[in-house]
Amino acid sequence: MQPLHIIKIGGNVLDHPAALDEFLAAFAHIEGMKILVHGGGKIATAIGEQLGIVSHYVHGRRITDKATLDLVTMVYGGLLNKQLVARLQSLRCNAIGVTGADANLIPAVKRPVKEVDYGYAGDVCRDAIPSERWVMLLHSGLVPVVAPLTHDGKGSLLNTNADTMAQEVGNILSPYFAVTIIYSFEKSGVLLDSNDETTVIASLDLGRYQALRESGAIHSGMIPKLDNAFAAMQQGVQKVVIGKAADLSQLLTGKKGTTLVNQ
Amino acid sequence: MQPLHIIKIGGNVLDHPAALDEFLAAFAHIEGMKILVHGGGKIATAIGEQLGIVSHYVHGRRITDKATLDLVTMVYGGLLNKQLVARLQSLRCNAIGVTGADANLIPAVKRPVKEVDYGYAGDVCRDAIPSERWVMLLHSGLVPVVAPLTHDGKGSLLNTNADTMAQEVGNILSPYFAVTIIYSFEKSGVLLDSNDETTVIASLDLGRYQALRESGAIHSGMIPKLDNAFAAMQQGVQKVVIGKAADLSQLLTGKKGTTLVNQ
Repeated sequence: MQPLHIIKIGGNVLDHPAALDEFLAAFAHIEGMKILVHGGGKIATAIGEQLGIVSHYVHGRRITDKATLDLVTMVYGGLLNKQLVARLQSLRCNAIGVTGADANLIPAVKRPVKEVDYGYAGDVCRDAIPSERWVMLLHSGLVPVVAPLTHDGKGSLLNTNADTMAQEVGNILSPYFAVTIIYSFEKSGVLLDSNDETTVIASLDLGRYQALRESGAIHSGMIPKLDNAFAAMQQGVQKVVIGKAADLSQLLTGKKGTTLVNQ
Repeated sequence: MQPLHIIKIGGNVLDHPAALDEFLAAFAHIEGMKILVHGGGKIATAIGEQLGIVSHYVHGRRITDKATLDLVTMVYGGLLNKQLVARLQSLRCNAIGVTGADANLIPAVKRPVKEVDYGYAGDVCRDAIPSERWVMLLHSGLVPVVAPLTHDGKGSLLNTNADTMAQEVGNILSPYFAVTIIYSFEKSGVLLDSNDETTVIASLDLGRYQALRESGAIHSGMIPKLDNAFAAMQQGVQKVVIGKAADLSQLLTGKKGTTLVNQ
């Protein structure tokens, strides 16, 4: 199978011009098929504040009211997405910016209200993702740049976590390609001691992850990230690497970051 | 040749929910290949004011400084474009939102500075438009929804007039399709008396246009619009219709609006 690289970047790199330059140059140089999935950054918060949009959180998760949905549609779907596309085009990478609404690439449902009403938050409908459309897009030589928005098929956009989108796309494309997902974040990899950047775990299997989680060495935000990542591996994704976006070239060769391995 | 409809809508319909609903329903029902090109609307001005972005004009044309470029990238490329895509998807129209940067669909150059520096305004490089990419996109069953932004190939987006983009795309696709362009605006068509909506000219050829322009019956903003439209017809576009977006179905059948004809 042909390799496919799916790279997810977040605010940590979008907010730092030098790191972003380095990342985009490395991304443009990846040979073969690839997808970039991006999150938001401080710019959304800054513009939201200027527009008087106040973010509400429940259990650490942002509630997407209508004003926030419009804000992320503007900033993620417009400003950040199109700037990334224009910069990749200048690096001779034939990028096309999309949300999950475009070509119906990632259908979703508005998250059902239980204890919390998350508003316009979208849960991906994996079985409805048109995998042939994705395959066609990739085979046509285009490089999708995906903003963290989906849609409900009834006319509304929905706010969706970028990590989840990378994982869902990786899963549905696993029957067609040898998929590697690279999750970039602010640390150099999964750390044995979360305060010490020199303690990167080079290679991590599920058993060791579970042990480190139970001992408390791996905690907080790393847990949903790694749960997602191991779930992707169990569903056909061949390789997951976690590390810094600016280290992309070395993450690809395994010289930096944490590579998840099957037991 | 297969027919291709290119429809341009502007702020007059984007700002009016009922007219927009009617337009989108009619657009979704057009059979065969089609492209929607949209301009901006009052929302860009309103958001710009909230963000403290002051528009500067020279000879009635807005100067696109960096702040304005970011504003239109957010509002045209993000908010309006993605809302149109999500709504068309709900009408079973497989829309994909693009700017000229996406897939390098409409390359441009930053307008050279002569008497006036228009800032980040883009002049389309017609010869560099990848017509095969457009043909492939249309043959794949997707419906491009085009925001009025291009790019310079050096990493920067550029602000470009939506009428011009519709015309340029129509021209380069004329060798492949029987192209009809519909320019929608606030009036019911080209009027003999610009103050009387009942004086729509049903059919207009270049000779009559030139006579009406000389007599002063056709004036102001209609002149560049019609100059563009007749230029498109001379360069291979088969048909141009001018009228109200909410009348789309009747514009297509010639029952409303002004149809330009070759002499």
